[in-house]
Amino acid sequence: MDIRAGLQSGNKRAVARLITMMENNDPEAFNIIKENYVKTGNAKIIGITGPPGAGKSTVTDKLTKLLRQKGKKVGIVAVDPTSPFSGGAILGDRIRMNDLSTDEGVFIRSMGTRGALGGLSKAANGAVKILDIYGLDYIFIETVGVGQSEVDIIKLADTVVMVMVPGLGDDIQAIKAGIMEIGDVFAVNKSDRDGAERTATEINMMLDLNKQGKYRPSVVKVIASENNGIDKLLEQIENHIEFMNTSGEYLSRKRMSITTEIVEIFRDNIIHSLKELSEKTRVIEATVERVLTKEIDPYTAANEMYEILRKKEVGNSD
Amino acid sequence: MDIRAGLQSGNKRAVARLITMMENNDPEAFNIIKENYVKTGNAKIIGITGPPGAGKSTVTDKLTKLLRQKGKKVGIVAVDPTSPFSGGAILGDRIRMNDLSTDEGVFIRSMGTRGALGGLSKAANGAVKILDIYGLDYIFIETVGVGQSEVDIIKLADTVVMVMVPGLGDDIQAIKAGIMEIGDVFAVNKSDRDGAERTATEINMMLDLNKQGKYRPSVVKVIASENNGIDKLLEQIENHIEFMNTSGEYLSRKRMSITTEIVEIFRDNIIHSLKELSEKTRVIEATVERVLTKEIDPYTAANEMYEILRKKEVGNSD
Repeated sequence: MDIRAGLQSGNKRAVARLITMMENNDPEAFNIIKENYVKTGNAKIIGITGPPGAGKSTVTDKLTKLLRQKGKKVGIVAVDPTSPFSGGAILGDRIRMNDLSTDEGVFIRSMGTRGALGGLSKAANGAVKILDIYGLDYIFIETVGVGQSEVDIIKLADTVVMVMVPGLGDDIQAIKAGIMEIGDVFAVNKSDRDGAERTATEINMMLDLNKQGKYRPSVVKVIASENNGIDKLLEQIENHIEFMNTSGEYLSRKRMSITTEIVEIFRDNIIHSLKELSEKTRVIEATVERVLTKEIDPYTAANEMYEILRKKEVGNSD
Repeated sequence: MDIRAGLQSGNKRAVARLITMMENNDPEAFNIIKENYVKTGNAKIIGITGPPGAGKSTVTDKLTKLLRQKGKKVGIVAVDPTSPFSGGAILGDRIRMNDLSTDEGVFIRSMGTRGALGGLSKAANGAVKILDIYGLDYIFIETVGVGQSEVDIIKLADTVVMVMVPGLGDDIQAIKAGIMEIGDVFAVNKSDRDGAERTATEINMMLDLNKQGKYRPSVVKVIASENNGIDKLLEQIENHIEFMNTSGEYLSRKRMSITTEIVEIFRDNIIHSLKELSEKTRVIEATVERVLTKEIDPYTAANEMYEILRKKEVGNSD
C-alpha cells in the first residue's frame, strides 16, 4: 500500500497503517508526518478526561454522534490504562463504539503503552497529527485516569472536557483540586444520580474561587447514556474554542503544548538510544548488578550511563 | 543543622530536611544518600495503590497503626495527584492521619510533581532510600491514580497492595485488567457495601485465569474505616514478603526496580541539563516559535535540541 497516496486520497486503511508505523518508531512514518506538517492545525482537538468510572467513553461516543449529524468528520484517540509488565493495551469499553467504527466519517484508535520506557505521549501526539493531516474536523483524545502521563497527553488538546460523576468518594477532593486547572468545560455525568446537584455546585464554587484563568469554565450536567445534555456540552466546547481563537489564548496554549511535545520526543529519543546501546553492549544489565551488590548507587549508575551514551554518540557522528 | 549527624542519631527533622534537599535537586542530598547507600535494603517497602475513592489512605493508616502496636517503625510516602499547570502538591486526605504524625515511630511525607518536566518518581525513590537509611522497618508508598507515572513509582515496592472497592463503574474492567499484574495482595475495601462479594469473586476469577506468576495473590475483604480485616491483610502482606525472600523473586524484582530507577534518574538528569541550557540560551523558546510557524516540525526540533545539548556538554567536559 502506498501510504502517501492513501493519505492524500483519504484512505482510512492507509491512515491506520501510518499510525501503526509511527507507534513502531518506523522513521518513514515520521518522514511522512514531517512532509505533511504544514497541513496540521485545522482539526479541533478536544481532550476528554476524568476519573475512572465517570463515563468518558460514553460522553465521547455521544459527542461524536452529534458531530456526525452536523456533517463533521471525527477522530477518537483513546489512550488506555497500561499493563506495565506485559505492555499491552486494554481496549476495554471501546467495544461498545462499534457502531461508530463502521461510519466512514469516524476514525477510532486505541493505544496503550509498550513497556516502562515510555513513548505513549509521543504516539498519541503523532496519531493526532496524522488524523489532522488526514483532514478530520474534530479529534477527541480520551484518557482514563488522572496520572501525570495522562495529563501530559491531555495537554495537547485545545479544549479539555473534564467528565465528573457524583459520589466518587474520598479522593474526589484531591482530584478536583488537581483538575481545576486542566478543565475548560466540566461535564457532570450520570446527573440523575444522588448528589449530582451537589457535585455541580462544588465544582462551580471551586471555579469561582479560582480566578486565575481568563476563561471561566462552565459546568454542564449530562446523562450521556441517555444522550441528555450532550448538545449543551458541545455548545460549551464550541464557546471555549471561540474564546481561544478570539483571545490570544490559542497561541499561548499551543506554545505550551509544543514545548511539552518537543521535550517528550527528545526524552523518548534519548531513552531509545540508551536501549539500543544496551541491546548491543548489555551495559544496563551489568550496571544493575553493580547497584544490586551496592558496589555503586543508582545515581552514580545513571551518570555512568550518560557518559557512556554521550561518548558513544559523539564517536559515532565523528 | 548537621544533616549527617541527625541522620545517624535518628533525628526526624534532619530526615525531613534531607528529603526536601533531595526534592530540590540539591547535590549534597545525593552525596549523603550515596555515602549511606550500603545501609539501604533493610526496610520492607510496600506499595499501596488502586483507583481514586478506594480508600488507600485509610488502609495505609490502619496498617501503620497495627505495625506500631507490634513495635515497628513505619514510613509513609504519599504521592499525590498533580496540578500540572501550577505544579503544586495536593495534600488532601493525609490530614486525617494527624494522629499518626505525632507518633515518633511514624514518618509521613506527601509529595507532588513540580511541573511537567518530571522528577516525582526520582523524588519518591529518593525519599524511600532516605527512610530506609534512617532505619524504618516498613515503608509504605501510596499513590492515587492508575497512570503510568504512578505505576513506575509503585514498581519499586517489594509488595504491592491493590485496594479495590465495589461498584466503581464502567472503567473497572479495564483497570482490573491492567492491575492484575501489579497486585501481590488485593484488598476489597468497604466490603460492607453492595457488590463486595462479587468484586472479590471477579478478582479471584481473574487471578485464577492469569497463571503467569509464581505467586497466587490473595484477596482480602476489609472495612478499613472500622479496622476490620486489617490483621488478615497484614498477614497476606507478610506471606508475600516471605515468598519473595525464600524464592528467587526478590532479586529478580529488585533487578527490575533498579533498572527502572536508573533509567528514570538518567532521563531526569538529561531533561535537567536541557532546562539549564535553555535558561541560559532560550534555545527551547526559539525552537518552539519555529514549530509554531511550521518552519520545522516537532521531531526535527527534538533532534536539534539533542545535537545542541550533546555538543554543548562535550564542549564543557573537553
